Amino acid sequence: MTDMSKKGLKPSQDGPDLAPRAPKSLLDLDTALVELKEFAHPTLPSEEISTFDVDNRVLREPLLSLINVPAHDNSAMDGYAICAEDLGVPEKVLKVTQRIPAGTHGAPIQKGEAARIFTGAPIPNGACAVVAQEDCTALQGDFVQINSLVLKGQSIRRAGEDIAKGVVVIEEGSRLNPASLGIAASLGYGQLCVSQVPKVALFSTGDELVMPGDVAPDQMGMGKIYNSNRFFLKTLLIRAGCSVTDLGNIADNFEQTKRSLQLAAQDHDLILTSGGVSVGEEDHIKPSVMALGVLHQWALNIKPGKPFAYGRINRVAGSFKAQNHGGTRFEHEYAHFMGLPGNPVSSYMTFVLLVQPFLAYLQGQSLVQYRHVPMRANFEWPKADRRREFLRVRQNEHGSLDLFTNQSSGVLSSVVWGDGVVDNPPNTSIKRGEWVNFIAFESWLK
Amino acid sequence: MTDMSKKGLKPSQDGPDLAPRAPKSLLDLDTALVELKEFAHPTLPSEEISTFDVDNRVLREPLLSLINVPAHDNSAMDGYAICAEDLGVPEKVLKVTQRIPAGTHGAPIQKGEAARIFTGAPIPNGACAVVAQEDCTALQGDFVQINSLVLKGQSIRRAGEDIAKGVVVIEEGSRLNPASLGIAASLGYGQLCVSQVPKVALFSTGDELVMPGDVAPDQMGMGKIYNSNRFFLKTLLIRAGCSVTDLGNIADNFEQTKRSLQLAAQDHDLILTSGGVSVGEEDHIKPSVMALGVLHQWALNIKPGKPFAYGRINRVAGSFKAQNHGGTRFEHEYAHFMGLPGNPVSSYMTFVLLVQPFLAYLQGQSLVQYRHVPMRANFEWPKADRRREFLRVRQNEHGSLDLFTNQSSGVLSSVVWGDGVVDNPPNTSIKRGEWVNFIAFESWLK
Repeated sequence: MTDMSKKGLKPSQDGPDLAPRAPKSLLDLDTALVELKEFAHPTLPSEEISTFDVDNRVLREPLLSLINVPAHDNSAMDGYAICAEDLGVPEKVLKVTQRIPAGTHGAPIQKGEAARIFTGAPIPNGACAVVAQEDCTALQGDFVQINSLVLKGQSIRRAGEDIAKGVVVIEEGSRLNPASLGIAASLGYGQLCVSQVPKVALFSTGDELVMPGDVAPDQMGMGKIYNSNRFFLKTLLIRAGCSVTDLGNIADNFEQTKRSLQLAAQDHDLILTSGGVSVGEEDHIKPSVMALGVLHQWALNIKPGKPFAYGRINRVAGSFKAQNHGGTRFEHEYAHFMGLPGNPVSSYMTFVLLVQPFLAYLQGQSLVQYRHVPMRANFEWPKADRRREFLRVRQNEHGSLDLFTNQSSGVLSSVVWGDGVVDNPPNTSIKRGEWVNFIAFESWLK
Repeated sequence: MTDMSKKGLKPSQDGPDLAPRAPKSLLDLDTALVELKEFAHPTLPSEEISTFDVDNRVLREPLLSLINVPAHDNSAMDGYAICAEDLGVPEKVLKVTQRIPAGTHGAPIQKGEAARIFTGAPIPNGACAVVAQEDCTALQGDFVQINSLVLKGQSIRRAGEDIAKGVVVIEEGSRLNPASLGIAASLGYGQLCVSQVPKVALFSTGDELVMPGDVAPDQMGMGKIYNSNRFFLKTLLIRAGCSVTDLGNIADNFEQTKRSLQLAAQDHDLILTSGGVSVGEEDHIKPSVMALGVLHQWALNIKPGKPFAYGRINRVAGSFKAQNHGGTRFEHEYAHFMGLPGNPVSSYMTFVLLVQPFLAYLQGQSLVQYRHVPMRANFEWPKADRRREFLRVRQNEHGSLDLFTNQSSGVLSSVVWGDGVVDNPPNTSIKRGEWVNFIAFESWLK
């Protein structure tokens, strides 16, 4: 476990834990990620699950091959297996003495003989090559004529050629995908040891929020807006492999907020809120988290998405039900807390930049990084910002990047329109035609 | 409905519908996709579903904005709203007459007054700018001093600035993602009209296949291999937004195969098999599909993945239960059939190149294409192939592409190791340092 005193986190009885850095000094995103990686310890326990059901889970043991793949020398084609002695003889006619479909094995063959063989079937003893059926003519009376030049070993897949027995095929800490499930199955693994699923409680905050469907657009009161963060955060959490409890809008008073957070902490790994982390006054989340544990408020060096909070909410000892919640994980003394800004684009970007990596670390994922692709800007960005900017862009048909005209953090239009962002370093302007770092949204939305 | 006679599809009573093209002429992938797009008509019916539950569904009506976003001029910051008359006066001191949190609305203000205002709160009448609180000093007795130069309109988000009333925000035929759910919610949509979920029946074929877990690696019989296609195909189908019925390994006789396929056709939109589509003899799938409907066998101009089959299996009239299966869609005269090759990499690649687009068309998705990114090859590929190749590669730290050494179609190692493919045109060799077309797996695995 991380020693919290070294991290600048203080227990709440010492009073509000305001940012330990000078207000004007912004925290670098990469530094924040290093801290979050430490905060994510201990990682979630692992469990054994059917290989059918572990897509998008994190593997917690190295996947070793206990076999050679293929297990035996086998045919790469439908055709005829022949002997070394019959190689190199033009238009050689051979007696077809047997057929070897996949899933069976044949008898040895000798000079002058051929075995009809199908893709994947083991090469019979004595054979040294397979001739594709397109290169043969079947003759009357179970004979076959070989029409092409055949080389020794041709169309034979060797035992262990694809995967040798004893090698690590998938590293511990990898996130599984359809192909890795396929390869685990091909090695005989009916179950895999993977991280348990993070349980996340989702709250939104804000008196101005109305649920879509509850009030018609033309009936919306002054200053009211529809809650949109709840929709994309829930979906992003599900895509990140979490089980989500959507607890709705949190009550607008201190005692009730505290009760809701404490209750959620009992059987969730992470409590995620959006809204109420900037330095405004109208919020009960921050004081509640401080009263229930510790809170670390960060001003990040990114745009959009400056305000961000990480904290811990202590669990009430003895009140959890370990039996109902998968063993001992909720006996741990606290639940994690993360507070996102309320502006939709800020909320979205801080989710993918900070929450998603944190959840990955919590599951024991070893390598958590985004794929940068160098691409050319088809836009001007003359006004450098002192923060690291994530500009919403779209690839055009010429393979360069168009910029969404409105980079405001107010609406998600830019995220819907775009197919990724330019990761633009602080104090950097961009000229048309320059190389920039592109990150596709798909590399986040696994 | 497509006129099948024009497509080279023949009813089975005319005998086996072997490829209408000369055996040596391979079908271009893009031509195959154009045909599959036509075969996908009629598309699946639509349904109204809660916006919470439509991630990865295809929108079937244009999403119109019925409101301005933001609805009213509102504050972009926590700060103080002030009047035009008080702009441009250095160190101006104003009387704070009200507070306007988000979700409320204030009274008009006039010269000499300021309203304490929070992010998202509507701008009161009379105010023309907001000063960020960092640029103010709160004084005794509800006064505030403005320390910075303020411009008219500063920190005000205008009504309709992000989304104007009446515009189409998301086009019909778009696949929804977390951001688009967020934007739909922000416009007040509690439900969306989306495509129904494709119901897919999955079969594998092959006597050599053993289920992982059933037999230990050291007990595997000669010529037996573990079934891996079933695992990645099921998972790829789920990621493609399908409901999957995994029907396991299909029985190895003609009558039983026919019965299984016909039964599955009654209440599935698509029947997907792997194995048994190459020109080998040991297979009952092809004759069964021919006997139950029509079959189109393609030899595709791609590597891996040449053999591929599309067909239709007629439903038995009157035997389906429309009430149990979401209305009238299974009254349609046939279910689609797609047969993939058995080699894992071929099966995987034909899935992403052909089945996934077909499923997208079936759901009414309008734009179905993969993102090509030009990147440099960090490898030599001296031997051009006459087919269009999809070479498994991985981005290295220098931003160029490394090639997986074993490009055999036997195992998925290359797909697990790699993070995408080079889409290499027919008859094209590659020299180190040349530009190639990269497609990230993520752009397929939504």
